[in-house]
Amino acid sequence: MSETQNKGLVAVCPGSYDPVTNGHLDIIRRGASICDRVVVGVVNASLRKMAPLFNADERIEMVQQAVADLDNVEVRAFDILLVEFAREMGANVILKGLRAISDFEYEFEMHQLNRKMAPEIESIYMMASPMYSFISSSGIKEMVRFGGDVTDLVPPHVAVRLVEALSSQSS
Amino acid sequence: MSETQNKGLVAVCPGSYDPVTNGHLDIIRRGASICDRVVVGVVNASLRKMAPLFNADERIEMVQQAVADLDNVEVRAFDILLVEFAREMGANVILKGLRAISDFEYEFEMHQLNRKMAPEIESIYMMASPMYSFISSSGIKEMVRFGGDVTDLVPPHVAVRLVEALSSQSS
Amino acid sequence: MSETQNKGLVAVCPGSYDPVTNGHLDIIRRGASICDRVVVGVVNASLRKMAPLFNADERIEMVQQAVADLDNVEVRAFDILLVEFAREMGANVILKGLRAISDFEYEFEMHQLNRKMAPEIESIYMMASPMYSFISSSGIKEMVRFGGDVTDLVPPHVAVRLVEALSSQSS
Amino acid sequence: MSETQNKGLVAVCPGSYDPVTNGHLDIIRRGASICDRVVVGVVNASLRKMAPLFNADERIEMVQQAVADLDNVEVRAFDILLVEFAREMGANVILKGLRAISDFEYEFEMHQLNRKMAPEIESIYMMASPMYSFISSSGIKEMVRFGGDVTDLVPPHVAVRLVEALSSQSS
Amino acid sequence: MSETQNKGLVAVCPGSYDPVTNGHLDIIRRGASICDRVVVGVVNASLRKMAPLFNADERIEMVQQAVADLDNVEVRAFDILLVEFAREMGANVILKGLRAISDFEYEFEMHQLNRKMAPEIESIYMMASPMYSFISSSGIKEMVRFGGDVTDLVPPHVAVRLVEALSSQSS
Amino acid sequence: MSETQNKGLVAVCPGSYDPVTNGHLDIIRRGASICDRVVVGVVNASLRKMAPLFNADERIEMVQQAVADLDNVEVRAFDILLVEFAREMGANVILKGLRAISDFEYEFEMHQLNRKMAPEIESIYMMASPMYSFISSSGIKEMVRFGGDVTDLVPPHVAVRLVEALSSQSS
Repeated sequence: MSETQNKGLVAVCPGSYDPVTNGHLDIIRRGASICDRVVVGVVNASLRKMAPLFNADERIEMVQQAVADLDNVEVRAFDILLVEFAREMGANVILKGLRAISDFEYEFEMHQLNRKMAPEIESIYMMASPMYSFISSSGIKEMVRFGGDVTDLVPPHVAVRLVEALSSQSS
Repeated sequence: MSETQNKGLVAVCPGSYDPVTNGHLDIIRRGASICDRVVVGVVNASLRKMAPLFNADERIEMVQQAVADLDNVEVRAFDILLVEFAREMGANVILKGLRAISDFEYEFEMHQLNRKMAPEIESIYMMASPMYSFISSSGIKEMVRFGGDVTDLVPPHVAVRLVEALSSQSS
Repeated sequence: MSETQNKGLVAVCPGSYDPVTNGHLDIIRRGASICDRVVVGVVNASLRKMAPLFNADERIEMVQQAVADLDNVEVRAFDILLVEFAREMGANVILKGLRAISDFEYEFEMHQLNRKMAPEIESIYMMASPMYSFISSSGIKEMVRFGGDVTDLVPPHVAVRLVEALSSQSS
Repeated sequence: MSETQNKGLVAVCPGSYDPVTNGHLDIIRRGASICDRVVVGVVNASLRKMAPLFNADERIEMVQQAVADLDNVEVRAFDILLVEFAREMGANVILKGLRAISDFEYEFEMHQLNRKMAPEIESIYMMASPMYSFISSSGIKEMVRFGGDVTDLVPPHVAVRLVEALSSQSS
Repeated sequence: MSETQNKGLVAVCPGSYDPVTNGHLDIIRRGASICDRVVVGVVNASLRKMAPLFNADERIEMVQQAVADLDNVEVRAFDILLVEFAREMGANVILKGLRAISDFEYEFEMHQLNRKMAPEIESIYMMASPMYSFISSSGIKEMVRFGGDVTDLVPPHVAVRLVEALSSQSS
Repeated sequence: MSETQNKGLVAVCPGSYDPVTNGHLDIIRRGASICDRVVVGVVNASLRKMAPLFNADERIEMVQQAVADLDNVEVRAFDILLVEFAREMGANVILKGLRAISDFEYEFEMHQLNRKMAPEIESIYMMASPMYSFISSSGIKEMVRFGGDVTDLVPPHVAVRLVEALSSQSS
């Protein structure tokens, strides 16, 4: 336990970030304010879900640009088990945001699996801020496809990329 | 933000602890393993709920005995707003356990109120371990009143106090 | 396991039944159709909640009248732990109805406590029929107090008793 | 149906309003913008809950002052069944706000009871605005008791009354 | 606000309606009884989900046949943002049914997004009637595929179309 | 009702079992301890979901091997409506496990549909044991794909098959 106290709190903050939203950034920033170091872990590719809109490099680059002002945050891709990624990064906690009941149930299950595989890694959760609790990457992509304005929901550089990606898609 | 990183993570872990259970202790111990300092805050008296079974001194003493082996945990009573107590203790986070959906909803509301009153204090949550997720202080008191065995649900010294308190109550 | 198969399925169906509703009776009847024997267990007195409207004898009598046509159902008061009552009755299962998410969470916790105390007693659940899922004893009492008609929500003899009890209360 | 269309939409908006909060007022104002007439129904006294902090006259007065600028809103006390009150007011809908899952479950049950008693009265629901979703009258009273600032959560005249009522209580 | 009162309540009732069920029709009919005009909006094609069983024309025709007796209901396809469609229709409210907790969470998120994009359009919700709360278009299609009888769950002309469409599919 | 009591309790326990987990087996074993006969029903092929990892024969074989020590359990494939399968098997109940709120909501809907189609077949539910409540077939497959150890989550012969199937898949 004294070791833990020496190295301080190092968190991994995993997700698809396809693309990063202001809701993600709220959790990352709040995490960075209490942790010594935050590693944003971008899931390289999911083996069972549909293909992401942006490739891993694009998604990483969009997160990096959004957190450029935060000294203790770095962004990495990973395609191994989350707990293995956390170990490789020297992290002692996994940090997740909770927006809703359905998040809670899913995270409750994930928590048990992760603790089973890596009891030395703790998971901590932060509640979404109300103004971001209704934002999801998939909802935002849907809005852009229908021509909606997402200026307040993602950083400016992400809004630009979304419009490019989704207008090229339909042409 | 650099200040935060200098002083490390100091958490308050509030509750009635009437009495402390193995579920509470699981969260306190896991919190102590990632925080520099954990202050267990025992709510002195609630202004609207029914009277506690144990007075504040008794409740504090039972927690203290249970965490005696943890160097970075201390136990204090408080009867002010939680965020004021956190400020007085020099804490930068409030740490709570989540056992169920109903906990989640209540904590979601409390989170917004606390952030409104003290934006500089972050709240973090840990999921209860499955073996403790069904334990509550009120459930345990109910079991003891009906003669049930709570040996695995509370520390031994708490089990003894519960039997004393609840048998004297009915005589 | 062969013993279990010999004695068949004996269920206890616990509750306050203050008073019995058509929702309770739906579960009791459906339970009686799949169990060899159903023991309706009326909680004599709760040690922590407010006083019931009807005393235990009245509550038992109202249930008995409502299930008089069912050969394999009996009604008993109990004031010990539910699992002890189940053992005394020779029951191998506890049968409960589930009406809503909040029921589910409460019963999930109770289930773990009961299995811990009596691993040999299984708990089974039935989903409320939609037409009864909105009925609770406390809701019905509230309606009668305000002069509402509860004819379709409780058996006729219970409706009569409710009006008597609640009109005498306010006089 | 043509009758309904002739008289327009008349809503009752029931509650204890002990005291009225900005969350209540958000729903009342949004209701007033789509209804021809909104009757805020203040439950005079509950027969089973604890005594309110403010008496019915005080609660009505606080709501009235807060909605004085809305031509189509009136405030009334009632101590009969909600559907009877709606009928007396000539209302064709009951309007409620939904803040959380627990609200949803409770309202779902109430909805079925009310439709059973008065099928001609419809119930409609509005989702709380995120900035008000964490506000409840009981939470606000608790905050004031502990010395917290509730300026942004209730109208100014209500904040004054709360401090008066709760400081006189403890002296 | 006076404008709103002059034009009355105009609602859009959006969905895929693949195909319309008795649960949808319950909400549409109840909506028609309190609104001056209801526009059933049939989502033309979703950009991310799997292909619908019936094309938009078929789905519209099935709804139209089912609401032919309602003077103040019309049916339209749309493939723009819901709030844009509402504006084009001159609607001041979006009307949705709520069947379950999962509906509630989804609608809570949609509500915030829609208010952000079009603050002048209000959303109102009605609770599903218990007898329809378990009906979904996808569940009904599944039942027909397995040879189940859906006579009570959809209008007769829809039942016929379902059997035609799904038997032709497997041949 | 006397007929029911003569034939005893015969349960079908339906699922995809792709593959069977220790969570499934916990429910099957607990079901076998209170039922005279349990028929594990393996859904042959779903008409709308993605293809299973294992074909029906493989899935049946894995379940059979895991319940070989239980005399009153048999395993069968089915590709008709669940209630038809129950009838063919001579079952009077459908037995399902409940792990979480989302299970509860889904099962609540299924229950109403099944009762509508076959009122003579009752559905009963058991709560998952806490140590299994976080296990799902899809979660386990995901873990194996990422190289995680699932030894404690499935029987040994299933763990072997999973590794074979998923390593051959990626080669």
